[in-house]
Amino acid sequence: MTTHGGIEVVPIGGLPEFAPGDSVAAAICRAAKIAEGDVVAISQKAVSKAEGRLRHLDDVTPGAEAQRLAAELDRDPRQVELILSESAAVLRAEQGVLITRTRHGFVCANAGIDASNMPAEGIIALLPEDPDASARGIRSEIRARTGRKIGVIVTDSFGRAWRLGQCEIAIGCAGLTPLDDWRGRSDSAGRTLGATLIAVADQAAAASDLVRDKTSGTPVSIVRGLGPYVTIDDGPGAAAIPRPEAEDLFR
Amino acid sequence: MTTHGGIEVVPIGGLPEFAPGDSVAAAICRAAKIAEGDVVAISQKAVSKAEGRLRHLDDVTPGAEAQRLAAELDRDPRQVELILSESAAVLRAEQGVLITRTRHGFVCANAGIDASNMPAEGIIALLPEDPDASARGIRSEIRARTGRKIGVIVTDSFGRAWRLGQCEIAIGCAGLTPLDDWRGRSDSAGRTLGATLIAVADQAAAASDLVRDKTSGTPVSIVRGLGPYVTIDDGPGAAAIPRPEAEDLFR
Repeated sequence: MTTHGGIEVVPIGGLPEFAPGDSVAAAICRAAKIAEGDVVAISQKAVSKAEGRLRHLDDVTPGAEAQRLAAELDRDPRQVELILSESAAVLRAEQGVLITRTRHGFVCANAGIDASNMPAEGIIALLPEDPDASARGIRSEIRARTGRKIGVIVTDSFGRAWRLGQCEIAIGCAGLTPLDDWRGRSDSAGRTLGATLIAVADQAAAASDLVRDKTSGTPVSIVRGLGPYVTIDDGPGAAAIPRPEAEDLFR
Repeated sequence: MTTHGGIEVVPIGGLPEFAPGDSVAAAICRAAKIAEGDVVAISQKAVSKAEGRLRHLDDVTPGAEAQRLAAELDRDPRQVELILSESAAVLRAEQGVLITRTRHGFVCANAGIDASNMPAEGIIALLPEDPDASARGIRSEIRARTGRKIGVIVTDSFGRAWRLGQCEIAIGCAGLTPLDDWRGRSDSAGRTLGATLIAVADQAAAASDLVRDKTSGTPVSIVRGLGPYVTIDDGPGAAAIPRPEAEDLFR
């Protein structure tokens, strides 16, 4: 697949601060004109707020493991308790950094838990319970409201093991090919391409972040021109992206 | 910094197959109209070809270490020899996969060595000797030819430890802020943002890949609208991106 023309990424302004129970889809449809084939990229934090995936640190009682790790890492034990409760496994706890595999299968710092851009001190946003389901729900509602076939990505910024800086990646998606498989196809000289599996959803997430402002909160942007990757079905979602544990060389 | 409007990514068609000694900059200026603030993203392979960073497997004599690893991984010992010669350290050699730290400091599979889209069987492209220097040279020549202040990225597709699929990243850059540092600035509620260091060059590289075609060879695309990140000086380049080894938790 290829996008023969170009692509365009536009930030959506004028969105409200989301609160539990709000419809993200309805707000997007009010703020933006959605076109056929658009990919709507929504930051995890907006989705988590609308889904009520918020916790107050005062309501968290750290267990023994959280207290031990927090002392080791010089971190707030209540935050460590939340991280552990969202994690299936701890990969590294060193240098103040806690890298875990989340229940969704994502390997990242702090299980994706984050205190920035929250409505009040002490409130923490967890990742959505099922970010692919979040994407499917938003997609279905935007489609019902606009009649357009679109893709939806729920994005979050992840660090990388060997590179500084965070890149936005897809933690959920619907109606978008998450991985474009060129394996077995031929290159320009007719030779079979090797390991070419393109991380379309992650690259679209990265593109969507280039127009965001981390302080003012621009939680939604639209990537236009990815029509060939936009599918009729919801597709496998971002659940298809994590590398199977058996192939993980860096546990 | 922020890009208040949107961004646009356009593929550049009509470029020739590059050969040693060719000017990539001259070809780009012939094929595209470069505007002020453009970021020109060029695939590593085009740069490597123009710089003559090609080797024929028949000219490679594998040493003992390459023979041992190749037997273990069921790989071509000559290719393994090339990989080792481009590497400072081997991180993993398992499941047929060879992950090394290149002499530049990049952690990736096969030291970035690749046989796809090569002019003939048995020819292998190495990464440029100094991809930041490649980017600076191309930038300077485009600037001399057009008078425009632009950024240049040399990109390559890297796999990720815990996610399937490759993402295009910046292995070299000039005239572009590689990492945008929001640490110490405040979020929408006035609280200090935590670890927010945005991988601008890598995200621009990812965006540039969304308009490429892996078989026909679209080695260059232009990312428009990143003006706030385009700098007068060449800047630190992509050499600023690899995480210092002392902070690497996944050696």
